[in-house]
Amino acid sequence: MEVDHHIRVSDGETTAGRGGVVGVFFASCWLRLRSVLVGLCCWVSGFARKVGRIAREDPRRVAHSLKVGLALTLVSVFYYVTPLFKGFGVSTLWAVLTVVVVMEYTVGGTLSKGLNRAFATLVAGFIAVGAHQVANRCGAQGEPILLAIFVFLLASAATFSRFIPEIKARYDYGVTIFILTFSLVAVSSYRVEELIQLAHQRFSTIVIGVLTCLCTTIFVFPVWAGEDLHKLTAGNLDKLAQFLQGLESECFGEKPASENLEGKAFLQVYKSVLNSKASEDSLCNFAKWEPGHGKFGFRHPWSQYQKLGALCRQCASSMEALASYVITLQKSQYPEANPELTLKVRTACGEMSSHSAKALKELSTAIRTMIVPSPANITMSAAIKAAKDLRNELSEEAALLQVMHVAVTATLLSDLVTTIVKIAETADNLARLGHFKNPEKTQKDVAINIPSR
Amino acid sequence: MEVDHHIRVSDGETTAGRGGVVGVFFASCWLRLRSVLVGLCCWVSGFARKVGRIAREDPRRVAHSLKVGLALTLVSVFYYVTPLFKGFGVSTLWAVLTVVVVMEYTVGGTLSKGLNRAFATLVAGFIAVGAHQVANRCGAQGEPILLAIFVFLLASAATFSRFIPEIKARYDYGVTIFILTFSLVAVSSYRVEELIQLAHQRFSTIVIGVLTCLCTTIFVFPVWAGEDLHKLTAGNLDKLAQFLQGLESECFGEKPASENLEGKAFLQVYKSVLNSKASEDSLCNFAKWEPGHGKFGFRHPWSQYQKLGALCRQCASSMEALASYVITLQKSQYPEANPELTLKVRTACGEMSSHSAKALKELSTAIRTMIVPSPANITMSAAIKAAKDLRNELSEEAALLQVMHVAVTATLLSDLVTTIVKIAETADNLARLGHFKNPEKTQKDVAINIPSR
Repeated sequence: MEVDHHIRVSDGETTAGRGGVVGVFFASCWLRLRSVLVGLCCWVSGFARKVGRIAREDPRRVAHSLKVGLALTLVSVFYYVTPLFKGFGVSTLWAVLTVVVVMEYTVGGTLSKGLNRAFATLVAGFIAVGAHQVANRCGAQGEPILLAIFVFLLASAATFSRFIPEIKARYDYGVTIFILTFSLVAVSSYRVEELIQLAHQRFSTIVIGVLTCLCTTIFVFPVWAGEDLHKLTAGNLDKLAQFLQGLESECFGEKPASENLEGKAFLQVYKSVLNSKASEDSLCNFAKWEPGHGKFGFRHPWSQYQKLGALCRQCASSMEALASYVITLQKSQYPEANPELTLKVRTACGEMSSHSAKALKELSTAIRTMIVPSPANITMSAAIKAAKDLRNELSEEAALLQVMHVAVTATLLSDLVTTIVKIAETADNLARLGHFKNPEKTQKDVAINIPSR
Repeated sequence: MEVDHHIRVSDGETTAGRGGVVGVFFASCWLRLRSVLVGLCCWVSGFARKVGRIAREDPRRVAHSLKVGLALTLVSVFYYVTPLFKGFGVSTLWAVLTVVVVMEYTVGGTLSKGLNRAFATLVAGFIAVGAHQVANRCGAQGEPILLAIFVFLLASAATFSRFIPEIKARYDYGVTIFILTFSLVAVSSYRVEELIQLAHQRFSTIVIGVLTCLCTTIFVFPVWAGEDLHKLTAGNLDKLAQFLQGLESECFGEKPASENLEGKAFLQVYKSVLNSKASEDSLCNFAKWEPGHGKFGFRHPWSQYQKLGALCRQCASSMEALASYVITLQKSQYPEANPELTLKVRTACGEMSSHSAKALKELSTAIRTMIVPSPANITMSAAIKAAKDLRNELSEEAALLQVMHVAVTATLLSDLVTTIVKIAETADNLARLGHFKNPEKTQKDVAINIPSR
């Protein structure tokens, strides 16, 4: 680009010699426009490639987008067709509004929001009509004041209830809609004559909106949160198995493990498991709202998946410690000493990892196919046996064992020290970028040196 | 309760002997009612205690609840006062609706939602009016069809854009409001005469709602997401320091460490750090919307806090490995062997943990007070020196070192085996509760035994 630009500029200068200032102006304008256009084209094609990748990664995303369009178009028919419109009047717009805010990616999400919305609207509507009846008896002067007090009290109390974890987890949206409906009905009751009719119309249109959403999500390419959770759990088990398989073949296998391990894929594979908590929790929450579907009954034990997830993350976090340890181990080569014991320990390590990997693979297959996982437990017993044998082997050398135990702690601690050094560096960066105050001069005079490891 | 119940029933029987069947009936009714009432009282008092605890934990929650009530009451004044109402008509209700959905706990959250809402409404309104002009030219027959096509296309495209991570992170709410406003305006353009006036009224009321929210969140007890993020980070560093301090005093201190460590508080303290990612990310996202406040400028380097958070979680995950290891270490006592080396390693461990703890404490203080953290780095050098010395010390015993390295891996692996056994058990539970299919008979006949460790 840069070279091309220069050539064109000198072209422009030649033109200037012949055609005058106007030519130069247009030429430079054209050049700028061209570079802007080329940049724009690059950006657009990059963006298009990104969009294509997102769509290919999970084609259900495209289906979901079209479903939202479909649901909105369906519900707007109520507005266009005059006989239907006459039944509900302007309230028909509430059906459109409901579709936009209730429609979620998964069936469970849509059900949770839809039921929350419908139920909260109903309850808040009743209470608001009651509040209106009470306020109405206080005369024209008192009514707005009393209504304002009601709105203040109920909105405050309902907002506070959102801080209670149980309500936050399942009914957060419902509480928002409760506040919304109560305020709208209570406030508008001051000027609207036929309050009951309005409330009735609005509730019916909300129900129409919710039903449209539910029909579209359940009957057109449904995305079940429960199924996604099920697959996520099986996939996480697979990833843990991959790590152990890699460990077995790269570190304890036949091949000498002198290679640099740092770039290996298997040492990264557990990382996505570490961050799976948020999506797992939301999927589990939605799955609980879903009716029975496919292989899953209505009361499928979804919370077990959360327990499995927590254990998987614990595994992944041990793997992180192990991975950083294995990398240092491979780097530092020592003269072969006590070869007999080293070989024994190596073999035991290889057995533990291969059997554990097999067990995890079988567990993941068992979950995926929903077949009771008995063989996995049998295989696991081999790994346990290897661990036990190793312990027995080592315990014969009591002196070594004790030193080793303390040394393991020491090694783990010195890994921690490395991480904390990084923390100190990042904190320093933060202090510099965030313009932290400098400490007093006297402290500054102390020489600062950070020895590198 | 149970005993009391029996006495009362026999009382009732005595009465029955004298007063007849009616007496028995009332007595039993009274007993039931009483037990229900007592249960209710228990539940209510338990609930009240819980609410009290939530409020005491963070009194800003109460303030936030009252602020929502205040903002709603303020905005509803527009509806009650006739001159104000005449300016906007029924559209005033949109101000109420905006307050309910835009008001968030932190200033950044409210700003992000409010700006998203106002901007998306404006853009969508313009596009929708344009779409109405185009559709209007196609006659009474074509108009609803063309409008429906527009709604379908824009809603689908906008919904798909929510899957792009950058848009999802910052403009998710804006896209929802874009779809909402476009659909509402486009659909209602079919029947409403004065579309421009309606759009104008609605936009003004939304701006009024957003401004009310902003004034309330910024000027009445503001909760800044940036400040919360800042405190969270400093607090996390403190927690990591506590763990290391505990380790130093309980495991490597003067006192013999024969006690059972399992119940100790310091071995649990890092756990909340492990799960801090979600709240950290959302606080960071909101903090970026906030104007300069207190000690923080507008372009404060918020992303540095995310980096620090990631490192803190890495530390916490090493600590998890260390904690489970230290517990096993304390349980198994071996005869004192090679006392000289053991003492050296112990001393080095104690130094590493105490110096690291000090460094973390000082970093957390530096962040809290926003003073450049130089002394912390100096202290860190002592921990690094201890780690280095330990390595040198150990490397003199090459034979030991090599065995140790392999043994550390083996020990970490055997910890993994323990976790995987738990995974297998949970998967078994899931299979039982979820009614997984049994494998074929032939496989079932194989005896299943899980040796316990």
